Amino acid sequence: MPELRKDPVTGRWVIIAEERSRRPSDFLRESVPPPALDGRICPFCPGQEAKTPPEVFAWRTAGRANEPGWDVRVVPNKFPALRIEGGLDRRPDGMFDRMNGVGAHEVIIETPDHGAVLSTLADRQIELVLSAFRERVADLKRDRRFGYTMLFKNHGAAAGASLEHSHSQLVALPATPKRVQEELDGARRYFEFKERCIFCDIVRQEAGSPRLVLETGRFLVIAAYAARFPFETWIIPKDHDSHFEYADGPTLANLAWVLGATLRKMERTLERPPYNFMIHTAPLQDPAMQHYHWHLELIPRLSRIAGFEWGSGFYINPTPPEEAAKFLRESGVG
Amino acid sequence: MPELRKDPVTGRWVIIAEERSRRPSDFLRESVPPPALDGRICPFCPGQEAKTPPEVFAWRTAGRANEPGWDVRVVPNKFPALRIEGGLDRRPDGMFDRMNGVGAHEVIIETPDHGAVLSTLADRQIELVLSAFRERVADLKRDRRFGYTMLFKNHGAAAGASLEHSHSQLVALPATPKRVQEELDGARRYFEFKERCIFCDIVRQEAGSPRLVLETGRFLVIAAYAARFPFETWIIPKDHDSHFEYADGPTLANLAWVLGATLRKMERTLERPPYNFMIHTAPLQDPAMQHYHWHLELIPRLSRIAGFEWGSGFYINPTPPEEAAKFLRESGVG
Repeated sequence: MPELRKDPVTGRWVIIAEERSRRPSDFLRESVPPPALDGRICPFCPGQEAKTPPEVFAWRTAGRANEPGWDVRVVPNKFPALRIEGGLDRRPDGMFDRMNGVGAHEVIIETPDHGAVLSTLADRQIELVLSAFRERVADLKRDRRFGYTMLFKNHGAAAGASLEHSHSQLVALPATPKRVQEELDGARRYFEFKERCIFCDIVRQEAGSPRLVLETGRFLVIAAYAARFPFETWIIPKDHDSHFEYADGPTLANLAWVLGATLRKMERTLERPPYNFMIHTAPLQDPAMQHYHWHLELIPRLSRIAGFEWGSGFYINPTPPEEAAKFLRESGVG
Repeated sequence: MPELRKDPVTGRWVIIAEERSRRPSDFLRESVPPPALDGRICPFCPGQEAKTPPEVFAWRTAGRANEPGWDVRVVPNKFPALRIEGGLDRRPDGMFDRMNGVGAHEVIIETPDHGAVLSTLADRQIELVLSAFRERVADLKRDRRFGYTMLFKNHGAAAGASLEHSHSQLVALPATPKRVQEELDGARRYFEFKERCIFCDIVRQEAGSPRLVLETGRFLVIAAYAARFPFETWIIPKDHDSHFEYADGPTLANLAWVLGATLRKMERTLERPPYNFMIHTAPLQDPAMQHYHWHLELIPRLSRIAGFEWGSGFYINPTPPEEAAKFLRESGVG
């Protein structure tokens, strides 16, 4: 019997179609090939710094700004969706509302090594990437025009990556994205009723559940109870914190290992799939919140989304989360 | 300067990236090939009725049930995402909520002609398809387990169609889909403030706007003000009605022409793109509402969706709606 499950945070119902159950080998195969230069010049490689806009941040052991010697380098997107200059100028348009597309759009180049992918980097290198995330958010927070910072990664062309050199992205926006606002609203309703953070309750319950993928002293990795997509996986810090940028050094160090291990499990189980991840965090200018809890959502791109899902926001997931978690747990890597 | 626009119904912000502006010729080309049997046997063709589950409805001029002679035929999906039998059995699962996957999943075979596509059918045939939609919804409404009926179409493999013989689908669900619930909530808030239907106000304002694609006595076709996707197009009845299934004969007759004309404009402008449409209507068991207004949302599949959009619900649309509407208006077909 197929089952309907409700996401406890957003209230979204999902069909878990067990009888159509699909194992890792049943999915569309679009493995991401290992990055290779093949004689081409890559603007994210050391020595090509002039091919990007000037860097806004770097972790480096040698060289000056915009020279080789960096470990992680952050540059503005050459083709930004938003512009950094000017005021928002919020205004009506008849019955509608508009404002200027003011924001920041940055690229975090995760390694100087063109042949590397995030999952194969040393823990210390992933930690530098996460620290660069935190530094950039802390810096953009000083600009009061920005209400939200999204940190995300598109891995593989099928997941939207236009350059193969390993990188993630940051977008600073004047408004909170709708999906995050739904989480904030749902988490607030739960808090009003229970006087507890819903994510803290999920951590408590899922630690012993068949949806558990991985657990460390500081993080829980789980298949989401009402996962929209096969192998949708969440990384949640065990200790309550509303904002990613408040994470301390030991937390980022542990997250580096957890993220790498989770990606390695996914790449082994699903044969290097394209994937997206995004960090969901509280709005930039809001103070620390009792009811919201930052986390990372990771989604491999395994199947096409049909009109049913688009038009409705009602998803059909052919892989029960308990089975997805089992495959990841038993993948033999970590 | 890029612009941020807010969808007035759901409150979702969208980036309209004018400087990345993309014309019809700039998009990924995945034209849907004309249907052709090439010697294969199609379960939706006349004479193959035994290859589908027994029909639940048909418009026919000859023959008996499950025989040739039909103009439009409705059958249960052979691989349904939901099952028609049994009770919902709503129950907790620790802190979570689940229920049985009870629902209906039907296929509306739009024509006996394997070589036809919806946009090329005669107006009268499209009207039969729309009447079949209405008949099925009216029938399923009698089953109090079902809270919502979704009518949608996936055209082309890239839009999720698994069989090429022209068809649309109906899913009856116990719960209202999230995207529709957001519209219901937003429309209610607007009504509480203005004491008017927001869709009626959109009809009044957009009739004279550069986003107008087509207007008849009964319908308005517009590019959505805060369109998430390039060429996202809405068909809205001018007269207020919350439920699609209350549409009368003359309204469906006019919609048949309007839908056909809109699809022909889109197919000419974008070279037969894959597309999805969905009818957004009020929940099945609710009485007529003053604040909600049924409509049809049509989205051609022109570009891949990246991690940014997935994770955030924040869309970047590279084609301003005013330009999309102009291309469709001037397509030379109707």
